[in-house]
Amino acid sequence: MSKTRSFWGWGNEEDALPAEERNAVGAVLAERLPGWEPRPRAVPDAARLTLPKLRVRAPSSLAATLSDDPRQRAAHTYGKAFRDVVRHLCGNYSAAPDLVALPGDEAELERVLAWCDEAGVAAIPYGGGSSVVGGVEPRDLPAAVSIDLTRLDRVLEVDELSRAVRVQAGVLGPALEDALRPRGLTLRHFPQSFEFSSVGGWIATRSGGHHSTLRTRIDDYVESVRMLSPAGWFETRRLPSSGAGPDPNRLVLGSEGVLGVITDAWLRVQPRPDVRAKGAARFGTFAAGADAARKVVQGGLLPAECRLLDPLEAELNGLGAGEAVLLLGFEAAVQRQAWLDAQLTGALEICREAGATRAEASAGAAAGWRSAFLRAPYLRDALALLGLVVETFETACTWDRFAELHESVTRALRESAGGGWVTCRFTHVYADGPAPYFTVLAPGREGSELEQWDAIKAAAADALSAAGGTITHHHAVGRDHQPWYEREMPPLHLEALAAVKARLDPHGVMNPGALLP
Amino acid sequence: MSKTRSFWGWGNEEDALPAEERNAVGAVLAERLPGWEPRPRAVPDAARLTLPKLRVRAPSSLAATLSDDPRQRAAHTYGKAFRDVVRHLCGNYSAAPDLVALPGDEAELERVLAWCDEAGVAAIPYGGGSSVVGGVEPRDLPAAVSIDLTRLDRVLEVDELSRAVRVQAGVLGPALEDALRPRGLTLRHFPQSFEFSSVGGWIATRSGGHHSTLRTRIDDYVESVRMLSPAGWFETRRLPSSGAGPDPNRLVLGSEGVLGVITDAWLRVQPRPDVRAKGAARFGTFAAGADAARKVVQGGLLPAECRLLDPLEAELNGLGAGEAVLLLGFEAAVQRQAWLDAQLTGALEICREAGATRAEASAGAAAGWRSAFLRAPYLRDALALLGLVVETFETACTWDRFAELHESVTRALRESAGGGWVTCRFTHVYADGPAPYFTVLAPGREGSELEQWDAIKAAAADALSAAGGTITHHHAVGRDHQPWYEREMPPLHLEALAAVKARLDPHGVMNPGALLP
Repeated sequence: MSKTRSFWGWGNEEDALPAEERNAVGAVLAERLPGWEPRPRAVPDAARLTLPKLRVRAPSSLAATLSDDPRQRAAHTYGKAFRDVVRHLCGNYSAAPDLVALPGDEAELERVLAWCDEAGVAAIPYGGGSSVVGGVEPRDLPAAVSIDLTRLDRVLEVDELSRAVRVQAGVLGPALEDALRPRGLTLRHFPQSFEFSSVGGWIATRSGGHHSTLRTRIDDYVESVRMLSPAGWFETRRLPSSGAGPDPNRLVLGSEGVLGVITDAWLRVQPRPDVRAKGAARFGTFAAGADAARKVVQGGLLPAECRLLDPLEAELNGLGAGEAVLLLGFEAAVQRQAWLDAQLTGALEICREAGATRAEASAGAAAGWRSAFLRAPYLRDALALLGLVVETFETACTWDRFAELHESVTRALRESAGGGWVTCRFTHVYADGPAPYFTVLAPGREGSELEQWDAIKAAAADALSAAGGTITHHHAVGRDHQPWYEREMPPLHLEALAAVKARLDPHGVMNPGALLP
Repeated sequence: MSKTRSFWGWGNEEDALPAEERNAVGAVLAERLPGWEPRPRAVPDAARLTLPKLRVRAPSSLAATLSDDPRQRAAHTYGKAFRDVVRHLCGNYSAAPDLVALPGDEAELERVLAWCDEAGVAAIPYGGGSSVVGGVEPRDLPAAVSIDLTRLDRVLEVDELSRAVRVQAGVLGPALEDALRPRGLTLRHFPQSFEFSSVGGWIATRSGGHHSTLRTRIDDYVESVRMLSPAGWFETRRLPSSGAGPDPNRLVLGSEGVLGVITDAWLRVQPRPDVRAKGAARFGTFAAGADAARKVVQGGLLPAECRLLDPLEAELNGLGAGEAVLLLGFEAAVQRQAWLDAQLTGALEICREAGATRAEASAGAAAGWRSAFLRAPYLRDALALLGLVVETFETACTWDRFAELHESVTRALRESAGGGWVTCRFTHVYADGPAPYFTVLAPGREGSELEQWDAIKAAAADALSAAGGTITHHHAVGRDHQPWYEREMPPLHLEALAAVKARLDPHGVMNPGALLP
């Protein structure tokens, strides 16, 4: 019944692509990528791990909480980016934490953090470990403890009248939904990492959910939050909204563990949607689809799903060839189908006016898309095992910059990858601009996949940053995006954050190297 | 054609209630407030102002920008709270700024701020001057310059594709709408102060607009912002959304002039709504109406107008006696009346199910309400001139606390006011709680109206704070709310803000005494 979490790849070992399926994917890709052949690699073996020497040992008072078990250390060395998987495949654990803490309650967490602060040992909060930006990696640190919060896994309180739930930081997506389901409630925040990412991680990284418009980001769901910093507790008041000074929740949201450890939060929940209206519209070009998506959202319609796939991405997702596809979905919790249908009709009309070749109601398309969406990270691991280089990243820009950004990022990806595929989709759409999500898949150069990936990443990040995009719409900054984050932010904002960090984390032990220089 | 701004009261002198109308109001009130009689006071005379001695003089290099004209100094001494008006009526200008700066461009602003920073003179950003919380008052300062931004009054650029506009901070509401109207666009942010408040002021105070749900606050409209702090410029990138670290716009939003002077911003605009669906529902009690408002919003409906008036407030607004009234309005920019009507029908159905005595579509009620809404501050001045004590304030709390908060705040107001009226309405409604807005009107005790007002304010603020509300939903903190703001915020958040201030404003010249202790 219970599955084993992979220490090196996505999710559960049992759910990874079986070798036969992986090889079948390799065969299909070999046909479509001229000159490339699958180069299967072995899956890492937990019994043969070589971890670096410990640079610090647990004090006896914390012996029960801090572990130096090699598998634990290996599992907490990286997040789940392509370059993380490749380093696992190479057995490279140079960045491993010395110790992994698994505090079972706040008192234990307080003791761990106090010890890190006193001993000057880096403390790296670790939720589901799904970072794709080096956010949980103890890179270039003299000594480090990875503080795994998965034992803070309780749903503490449900306020059905205000529709809010108090959850501990270590609760993963499915466990939260399981706790809410019997009451007819849901958070309805579905990042792609949903099954293996935590409430605390969502808040620390300002995660983006499945909703394409309106409540796109965990920020909108946070009613209050608690965080333990080395300087003490930071706890905000439960409020539906307040105009009192700069929002204290917003200091915690996106803080990526550099100010403290998020321990729990009150999140806004909603009744489970029981009515839906779905449809799809097809366009001759991605640009025409983008135009329609813009007009739908600028027209005041707020579909829960407004996902535009470019022709190749649509084809790869089994949604037909040669056309861009805009998936539209409206949902509501009240039994009033009429106003949902009216919205879908309105959105489809806008698509037709914007030049759709076809625009009609249909439930099937979106359902197929969703299962592929949650399965994608497993497929990514398989591609890495086959010797391909894969990268996905996202940005956001205003509409006036989009055409140029799309062109220059695509060009940068094609040139730096030297072959393979580049696709783009919109994951979220705002009235003032889209959030484009790029995927690149290229034949790997044996032995230098990391350098290859780094070059692709840098070329893409340079291009999107120069075109006015943000270095991240919802993957966070971590360590990998840090140089571009610095370029994007007002220098005084970085200095302001550094000043805040100096106050909340005076010895600089919280996740050093992430977010801030 | 052009009107004269009042130096002591709301808006334009020409638009104040004429003496006859004021006296008529006094006569009506005298009938309804047993034991009270109008005690008319004289309107302040600009020709007879006595201002305190100057404590600092303009350097010759800034002589053209800095004025010590008495009328200007008087006009910039206070905001527009009841206690401000009363101090004007008493000729109390002890808090007057020494100088008023009216920079005509950024270069001039830079020179003024550099001089303040160097000379250690407090610099108080002043937009429309409509603060009701002492936000622009140079209270207890050794020397002060009020920096009036109304000459930074240009609409700099409109991006019709991304639907955004770049506006200077000194632009007032009507001028912004005038600039957008010919393009078919609107910001549609209508705080009660709309005619006499500025874009910069809205951002500095996180102002609340007329929209009752969804985009309730200027925060949602800010795409990017520029602020001049003593340490330099703080400029964020135009983005529809970003997940890169704590949002830099959110550090500026609500900063109330303590970090720098906001000079301009890109704001998200929208097409002018051309379809509407309006209705009203009546309830036997305020609590029953609150229940319905909650269910409407929790049902996923997002009316632009969702305003609940308690029975007395409904009566005073000419909406009938003895019942609470929920005003509902939906609006959209696309010619698709069907889905608006479907939403209104849905909301009215929810109201009926929640026990409304009547719930029907009707355009008239809301229109009447809006004109009274914009006229209210003029009426408030008239009441002050008649010798009444008036206070309005707002809060927000989660639904589970609302009944208790409403009861305890109402009780505190009745007890501290010692007679008169207390009313409540919802200005904004969130899925997890309402924003109740209270009005108290009481016979003034001659000569001690300020002490009376202070006692009412303190009693109300104590009660709402104890009941879990916020000290302000959209009036900001300023100086008057400061003690309760301190109670409400995590102590480490206040320390974090102080650390940010020390970096951006190392000599502490920016609006000292506001927001932070």
